[in-house]
Amino acid sequence: MSPRTSRRSPFMIAAFILAVLCCSPRANGADTLHSWNSGPTKFAVIHFVRDVTTEGGPGFVPPAGRIAVFSHDGTLCPEQPVPAELAFLMDRIKMLASKHPRWMTKEPFKSALSRNMKALAASGTRGILELTAAAHSDMTAEEFETTVTNWLAKTRNPKLNRPYNQCGLLPMLELLDFLHSSGFKTYIVYRGDAEFLRPWAEKSYGVPPEQVIGSSVKMKLEVHKGVPSLVRRPEFDVLEDGPGRPGAIYRVTGRRPIAAFGNSDGDIEMMQWTAAGEGRHLVLLVHHTNGGNEFAYDRKAMFGRLDRGLDIARKNGWTIADMTKDWNRFFPKTGQ
Amino acid sequence: MSPRTSRRSPFMIAAFILAVLCCSPRANGADTLHSWNSGPTKFAVIHFVRDVTTEGGPGFVPPAGRIAVFSHDGTLCPEQPVPAELAFLMDRIKMLASKHPRWMTKEPFKSALSRNMKALAASGTRGILELTAAAHSDMTAEEFETTVTNWLAKTRNPKLNRPYNQCGLLPMLELLDFLHSSGFKTYIVYRGDAEFLRPWAEKSYGVPPEQVIGSSVKMKLEVHKGVPSLVRRPEFDVLEDGPGRPGAIYRVTGRRPIAAFGNSDGDIEMMQWTAAGEGRHLVLLVHHTNGGNEFAYDRKAMFGRLDRGLDIARKNGWTIADMTKDWNRFFPKTGQ
Repeated sequence: MSPRTSRRSPFMIAAFILAVLCCSPRANGADTLHSWNSGPTKFAVIHFVRDVTTEGGPGFVPPAGRIAVFSHDGTLCPEQPVPAELAFLMDRIKMLASKHPRWMTKEPFKSALSRNMKALAASGTRGILELTAAAHSDMTAEEFETTVTNWLAKTRNPKLNRPYNQCGLLPMLELLDFLHSSGFKTYIVYRGDAEFLRPWAEKSYGVPPEQVIGSSVKMKLEVHKGVPSLVRRPEFDVLEDGPGRPGAIYRVTGRRPIAAFGNSDGDIEMMQWTAAGEGRHLVLLVHHTNGGNEFAYDRKAMFGRLDRGLDIARKNGWTIADMTKDWNRFFPKTGQ
Repeated sequence: MSPRTSRRSPFMIAAFILAVLCCSPRANGADTLHSWNSGPTKFAVIHFVRDVTTEGGPGFVPPAGRIAVFSHDGTLCPEQPVPAELAFLMDRIKMLASKHPRWMTKEPFKSALSRNMKALAASGTRGILELTAAAHSDMTAEEFETTVTNWLAKTRNPKLNRPYNQCGLLPMLELLDFLHSSGFKTYIVYRGDAEFLRPWAEKSYGVPPEQVIGSSVKMKLEVHKGVPSLVRRPEFDVLEDGPGRPGAIYRVTGRRPIAAFGNSDGDIEMMQWTAAGEGRHLVLLVHHTNGGNEFAYDRKAMFGRLDRGLDIARKNGWTIADMTKDWNRFFPKTGQ
């Protein structure tokens, strides 16, 4: 071996290690999506990610354009028997009721206190906003965060017997991991109060607070205990389901997503808008078909109704994840 | 040399190269802030960044918490003789006027067409919104982006003779670079239409579109030339100066910033809120004192008035960047 070759060799090894480490660590979906059964749905996901991450390929999308949006309730986690935030809201109303004796006879408080879901659903957005105004405001942003965190620590989804922030659907968590390791920026699109989800979105889903797009309360800077703080006011800017979603997403992201994941009629427009973008895209609908492992519902559900969306998805050839056919595990071990 | 030592050596070299490359490349402010004169202002910036990035130190802030907010007009770029978006707005109104003969005699259009700045300023937010509704709406998000990009390509700041997207103040561009290389996430807080700034914020400032927080028009999903597209409606959600800013920032970031950069009375509350956070923070006010290289104005300016803010900054000991004292270069070479 000549001295020259011998000097080169450490650099070649270094260069090789660097090449391996510096290249975007494009995960192989087969290594990540363990809870997905082999079949056309899993194939569609892997195929899409491979196409948009293959440099020089016809479907390549630079990392800045790899925007994926996920609906929350029913897509990333169960929304039955009631969505997490509604459970929180009812608990808060119950806790505050002793200071508001009139609530016992006044709607929608009366229905919230008696957990009359049908009457609550009938009170519509206006009813829910009235409850939220009473339960979510007149405290600082930091106090609200603490309130949410404390509630999560002592509450569980009654059927699944898991803390609400450990109810993420395992196949969707794997999908998030796969997208993150493939250079995607993922956003959660949430009809509820963004500040309810933000304290736990990063730990539960790997999505940082600034990537949670949701409804919001008006916040006003006030001097609170001597410190200028944001105080939550009982006024809302509601992220409407349906046609309002694409605008709300664009307002935050400034780009049209290339992947959208939803599960209900409220997600249709977000998915149509994503599907209409130029270039490669993935639009995937989660269909709750497994009452044994999770919940089974669609066209007649009180929360997360999927009726028109199912027809539109089938007509347009969108990818449908049928929980029973496509998934083999539903939740990670608790405590993970 | 034993065979063992000889086998180790390439790995040691590789490990060394990896260590250098994988460690967060924390830039040294002295290497970056060339246009800043040595003195207490530059020192305050470097000292702050060193403190929050020194692991194990008392001021350490993990990267996720390193949020910095910048006002745009007057902080990152000049806002004289008129802010870029107002120049755009007047050009758009002029271009559209042939289709609207009544504008010749109707305010605020008449003042926009005659470039009567005093009358325009007197028309207030309502007047500007009326102009914006006429000039910025009834087109898709993509069409608006193209309109802005085309306008930037053929227009210049009349005093500086530079395209508006090349008017970034060099010391502030260096500061952005320094913060980015120190693990900060930077946001631009912009009173104008976020979609006006987003097409060029990344190239001009290294700030991606999703980190521009601004006013927004309502957007509605409509089928436009056969494609579901977001169409801009003449309705606004205005990011108010002053007390409205902290809430608008929190709504996007979900965190209180640890650094805030402003230049006018409209930035006070954003800076007060940042200064009131726990732990280390930096609040810096840009004072326009150099009429030769840029513009000199403060307490009586029509755009970017700095009156109350100057007193508050001095009283609270905020860092003030006096352009004449603290900066030695103002703009990069054009074409850079």
